[in-house]
Amino acid sequence: MAGKIPRSNDNDYSSDIIKQRQDFIEQETGAKLHHTKQFSFNPENMSGNIENIFGVAQVPVGIAGPLLVNGEYAQGEYFVPMATVEGTMLASYNRGMKVIRESGGVLTTVTDVVMQRAPCFVFKDARQARDFTLWLDQNFLEIKARAETTTSVGKLNEIERYHVHNMVYTRFDYSTGDAAGQNMTSRATFVACEWIREQNPHMSHYLLSGSFDTEKRTSSVNLLKGRGRRVTAEITIPREVMKQHLKVTPEAMHYGQGISTLAALLTNSSNNAAHPANGLAALYLATGQDIANIGESNQCTTYNKVTRNGDYYYSITLPSLIVATYGGGTSLATQRECLEIMDCYGADKAMKFAEIAAGLVVAGELSLAAATRTDKETRTNDWVDAHERLGRNR
Amino acid sequence: MAGKIPRSNDNDYSSDIIKQRQDFIEQETGAKLHHTKQFSFNPENMSGNIENIFGVAQVPVGIAGPLLVNGEYAQGEYFVPMATVEGTMLASYNRGMKVIRESGGVLTTVTDVVMQRAPCFVFKDARQARDFTLWLDQNFLEIKARAETTTSVGKLNEIERYHVHNMVYTRFDYSTGDAAGQNMTSRATFVACEWIREQNPHMSHYLLSGSFDTEKRTSSVNLLKGRGRRVTAEITIPREVMKQHLKVTPEAMHYGQGISTLAALLTNSSNNAAHPANGLAALYLATGQDIANIGESNQCTTYNKVTRNGDYYYSITLPSLIVATYGGGTSLATQRECLEIMDCYGADKAMKFAEIAAGLVVAGELSLAAATRTDKETRTNDWVDAHERLGRNR
Amino acid sequence: MAGKIPRSNDNDYSSDIIKQRQDFIEQETGAKLHHTKQFSFNPENMSGNIENIFGVAQVPVGIAGPLLVNGEYAQGEYFVPMATVEGTMLASYNRGMKVIRESGGVLTTVTDVVMQRAPCFVFKDARQARDFTLWLDQNFLEIKARAETTTSVGKLNEIERYHVHNMVYTRFDYSTGDAAGQNMTSRATFVACEWIREQNPHMSHYLLSGSFDTEKRTSSVNLLKGRGRRVTAEITIPREVMKQHLKVTPEAMHYGQGISTLAALLTNSSNNAAHPANGLAALYLATGQDIANIGESNQCTTYNKVTRNGDYYYSITLPSLIVATYGGGTSLATQRECLEIMDCYGADKAMKFAEIAAGLVVAGELSLAAATRTDKETRTNDWVDAHERLGRNR
Amino acid sequence: MAGKIPRSNDNDYSSDIIKQRQDFIEQETGAKLHHTKQFSFNPENMSGNIENIFGVAQVPVGIAGPLLVNGEYAQGEYFVPMATVEGTMLASYNRGMKVIRESGGVLTTVTDVVMQRAPCFVFKDARQARDFTLWLDQNFLEIKARAETTTSVGKLNEIERYHVHNMVYTRFDYSTGDAAGQNMTSRATFVACEWIREQNPHMSHYLLSGSFDTEKRTSSVNLLKGRGRRVTAEITIPREVMKQHLKVTPEAMHYGQGISTLAALLTNSSNNAAHPANGLAALYLATGQDIANIGESNQCTTYNKVTRNGDYYYSITLPSLIVATYGGGTSLATQRECLEIMDCYGADKAMKFAEIAAGLVVAGELSLAAATRTDKETRTNDWVDAHERLGRNR
Repeated sequence: MAGKIPRSNDNDYSSDIIKQRQDFIEQETGAKLHHTKQFSFNPENMSGNIENIFGVAQVPVGIAGPLLVNGEYAQGEYFVPMATVEGTMLASYNRGMKVIRESGGVLTTVTDVVMQRAPCFVFKDARQARDFTLWLDQNFLEIKARAETTTSVGKLNEIERYHVHNMVYTRFDYSTGDAAGQNMTSRATFVACEWIREQNPHMSHYLLSGSFDTEKRTSSVNLLKGRGRRVTAEITIPREVMKQHLKVTPEAMHYGQGISTLAALLTNSSNNAAHPANGLAALYLATGQDIANIGESNQCTTYNKVTRNGDYYYSITLPSLIVATYGGGTSLATQRECLEIMDCYGADKAMKFAEIAAGLVVAGELSLAAATRTDKETRTNDWVDAHERLGRNR
Repeated sequence: MAGKIPRSNDNDYSSDIIKQRQDFIEQETGAKLHHTKQFSFNPENMSGNIENIFGVAQVPVGIAGPLLVNGEYAQGEYFVPMATVEGTMLASYNRGMKVIRESGGVLTTVTDVVMQRAPCFVFKDARQARDFTLWLDQNFLEIKARAETTTSVGKLNEIERYHVHNMVYTRFDYSTGDAAGQNMTSRATFVACEWIREQNPHMSHYLLSGSFDTEKRTSSVNLLKGRGRRVTAEITIPREVMKQHLKVTPEAMHYGQGISTLAALLTNSSNNAAHPANGLAALYLATGQDIANIGESNQCTTYNKVTRNGDYYYSITLPSLIVATYGGGTSLATQRECLEIMDCYGADKAMKFAEIAAGLVVAGELSLAAATRTDKETRTNDWVDAHERLGRNR
Repeated sequence: MAGKIPRSNDNDYSSDIIKQRQDFIEQETGAKLHHTKQFSFNPENMSGNIENIFGVAQVPVGIAGPLLVNGEYAQGEYFVPMATVEGTMLASYNRGMKVIRESGGVLTTVTDVVMQRAPCFVFKDARQARDFTLWLDQNFLEIKARAETTTSVGKLNEIERYHVHNMVYTRFDYSTGDAAGQNMTSRATFVACEWIREQNPHMSHYLLSGSFDTEKRTSSVNLLKGRGRRVTAEITIPREVMKQHLKVTPEAMHYGQGISTLAALLTNSSNNAAHPANGLAALYLATGQDIANIGESNQCTTYNKVTRNGDYYYSITLPSLIVATYGGGTSLATQRECLEIMDCYGADKAMKFAEIAAGLVVAGELSLAAATRTDKETRTNDWVDAHERLGRNR
Repeated sequence: MAGKIPRSNDNDYSSDIIKQRQDFIEQETGAKLHHTKQFSFNPENMSGNIENIFGVAQVPVGIAGPLLVNGEYAQGEYFVPMATVEGTMLASYNRGMKVIRESGGVLTTVTDVVMQRAPCFVFKDARQARDFTLWLDQNFLEIKARAETTTSVGKLNEIERYHVHNMVYTRFDYSTGDAAGQNMTSRATFVACEWIREQNPHMSHYLLSGSFDTEKRTSSVNLLKGRGRRVTAEITIPREVMKQHLKVTPEAMHYGQGISTLAALLTNSSNNAAHPANGLAALYLATGQDIANIGESNQCTTYNKVTRNGDYYYSITLPSLIVATYGGGTSLATQRECLEIMDCYGADKAMKFAEIAAGLVVAGELSLAAATRTDKETRTNDWVDAHERLGRNR
């Protein structure tokens, strides 16, 4: 039977207890931790980021760019750190950035900023539940006041409500400044709910998490109403730039996107794009975002058309881009440095960072969509060949 | 205007060029790379894993466990390395593992192993397309032989085909041994498609990627037909264990799961679970998996019931669990060590690793589902409080 | 080559032109129209209901009931006319009504009444589109005033807006009294849109129908936000009533519903119910509703639980129940009579009719869910046998 | 308290008992049944089609056409009877048929014919369930033999199986000749399941209907795998025909379809078409189909492109078109006559009828898609105006 992982009552992040854990693991499992043991930061700063720490994952980070962004917050050229273990991926994003530069940049727009908690209120019957939806509307300002007592940053902007059966599913929609905000909204919503419960003694009960926030997964409700930042990135690629750098005409690209969109419709897919999760995961990992959010942030739609001039318009809307430049993992040693490479560390930088992230996704989409095409004359395929050349194919 | 990222013609992974890139970044952006520069491995081994490498992300790794798994491949207690920057998460999974131990372990079963490429074949009209589906059936063995000329490991087991309009979307379904297999299947499918094209000169053309593999995103077709490994993890928790360790009765847990499942149905969510992406992301990151796969691997269904004895049966099926113990990022310095902690490095370990991953997810689901409940007497909520206590709330 | 269907410039609904059409059809096709020619109403009243009329479909109508409804509008026992050609269906609904009576009636609640038109506004880029969403909010009252100039009944209550790419999809949400309202909302929205266009000269253009109303099809947006009437029908069936009349325990029924709900989740199904389309289609057909609306009105969720007393709670929420008691086909000869059987003809009856419709659906759900079960002792199955006995099996 | 609906032990379809029911309804409800009482057929033929019959719905039927179909079964011009109470609808379909004629006809292709029953088999755990999927494969021929003992027409062609948790959801896929087949497949599947159960005594139990057939509702599994007939209808409309008759260019139509498809993706809609339910409902009603099937038959995808010549290619695939020309309501008095108008009554006609139905849908799609456009010069909108002119707007 296995032993017990060493814990300390005093300081569970001291070098001493970490050493004990390393020894424990080596003894229990026979694994040798030559590399995992080696890190350059003070582990005591990890309190709040992890429990039972015993080392680090060292994940290679590369640099891509510059990415030319014409945003409201990000304006100019940015070098983007990407952490990954998948060969060819960074090179592909880099190629897309070149196309973006040649086209004058990617235009980015943030539409909404919102973070949810989603309590579910349960009643004796549908009629009580329906009447409660009206009560919620009438008492919104007071509920908002209660929720906001718990946070100096979060603002409760709306309560979406969906009545079914004897329940009311809700989404408490907050703005949370430059933090991702999942935690501050939990506390605020809990306090608000307790007050709501007191005011509605006929309520059977409520669940603090009724799952309508669909955290860390994709959903139609997030696609429609958003979660995190709703960001659109657009570009018009001149016909000649496209032909030269992506080796495809606007018409052929538009045709291929139509095939992909139909596939997404047929398969009920979380997006009709090529691989937004790739670029986002690499950026999230480098910059201390919660990488589990890839489960929801990959959701998006793309749209494209050939313009009257024969150029190519391409757009992606990411309705659930969850990013932070403050709190969470952003202040850790390497993560902060990677944010600083883009001047995105700290307060008042989340909008800028969101715009860069969306622009990055466009770079990857353009590049991969073009790469998967087979050259008609040589009958070769860049996508296959790049993995042969740069990746670890077998 | 920004400068150009240094590249080398000789060896783009030498210490020298990496140093040049670090200097370039520091000069161009003003960021200081004290920590990102520090890594313990030979960067020349990175060829095939990343381009433009300039350093590492150091992500803290903690240890949870032991996780008691009753699988066909994983049998016994495992300590699980989890890399994360989100406080409370590892502690929560650890709590779930205790419940699993007290219940005699988690039962794991792998149903299918499959990796896809998904070409789309286009014809003049629907009638030609329909007839092509019959041709595919009749020529399967020959197509299989062509595809398998390119790989010693991959086996083409089935070609799913979906006829719509003037097209046939397909999914070439391979087994790929202990590699995730996205790359080997690209090459094999390309070679097969070129042969198919030659045999069907009336075909208008084909797209090597018709998007029906829904790579790195969730979809109904993956939920139904699978991608990667289809793994189920089940547990029956004795009533008293549940009450003591999760502070909830089987009936209350079942009721809460019903609310979550209804929410998933109403929102068209990619799963009806609590947060499978969390545990998977932490495990994937520690062990060199492609973390972008969280975009698809988070998809799952859960099922639960109160047994006749009053115990609690819980099950999760992950239809798209993409894991590798060989190739990709698995042989990198810290990643390999973390695999070795579970004796999951190298050939013939992927089934075992998949079973451990599924068991890990169950630990997190049980723990969070219980934590989000508010105590009726004290009116406190563990989920909110844990983040206050362990996390970086503000 | 075929001839031309006779038309009249004077009165395309006169007996004369209808006779010409009948003759034409018999000559052109060889079919004999003995029965289709026979109808009891004045065809000149059909103007506005159909073009090129040449006869009638005679569809058998049966009577089920009484259905005991505890609604806010429908209160008491109703006999329900159902038009169908599918044997066993009416008998099954009738059985369910007995269970409802024995349980004290079905409780019905209407939550919302809304009918949409869904224009899409297109701009040069996402930033203009986003800014337009704010303009819409600020100018809602004026838009509302413009829309309502076209109708004495319709009220514009909300404009939902969904920004993606360079577009804003909207849903103009009206209340439309006792008419279904698809037509009045078209006119009102067109007038409003023309005004909006004039006020926003930078707008590229708009499409009057951007398809976000998802008319005559199911969708997540309708499930969440509703279309037509959002109606919930609930019942608590005493344990003994259930065992006696449905031959199933509450626990077994709950278990079976769990299996169905999981199936709905796995298949992305438009409902997790048994067959709401059956009862609705029969009622719609008998009462002059637009039966094509079955395409959207079948959408719903069900929810159920075993109560603490061991009774069975069942609920269905139909978010898109489109019904009218005025306008459309409701004043036709037999259709009006069937509405009058339930005292549901004319103004101020649509809420009542919606409640009866929802109650009817519950009757069918309870009956079929129980019928599909196989008796453990006799190994017979009512569902199979009923079709043998009552239906046209072969 | 309400009275009891008269029933007869001898012949529940005699004129006598029908008269009693009519009197009962008039007395109980006060409604007068002048028209509903009037029908031209012998009600005793209704046995197997309805219970508790007391009269008929008289629904107006109009004629549209000719529809020029280039199918494998339907070849030539057909006049199509459509029963409806919605003004403008038939006129709109008629306009579309003109465009089809001018374009040389609509090309139709049936890909698959399948009718399902969907039992769910439940086991102690996932491992037993997984092993059962293998047993099913190995014993397919014997299962097939058992199922086919019950029917001279139905053939069991495949058993789809989906393993999740401790269950195996299946779809027993039959061909059923010219009947819709829902009933014959119930009996066959029941007999097969009872045998399967006997062979697998460790099975916990099975449910004859596990809901994976998604009967009378839309679903991804039906979209992918089909139900009823999978039919594609295609047309290439010459540019000049389009401009003259639909008053829109191919480019503008393609653009509008892109907006609709994006809306379908964003809303998780059951189709990306305009209104297939309309034409299908009118045809189903006239010809004795089960109109509740509109709940599933409305599901479809459309695809379109501008050809290299500047013409317009349009295609619709209906994966779940459920039609019969034999059995069910097809032999009723008016229904049979309407089938005969198209020479579609009786055995060996279902393929032909399916092709006509799909062609009809194309007519309605082309017409409505064009009608909803606003004329740029006159700022008028046909769609709105047609309802003013022909419909019952208010």
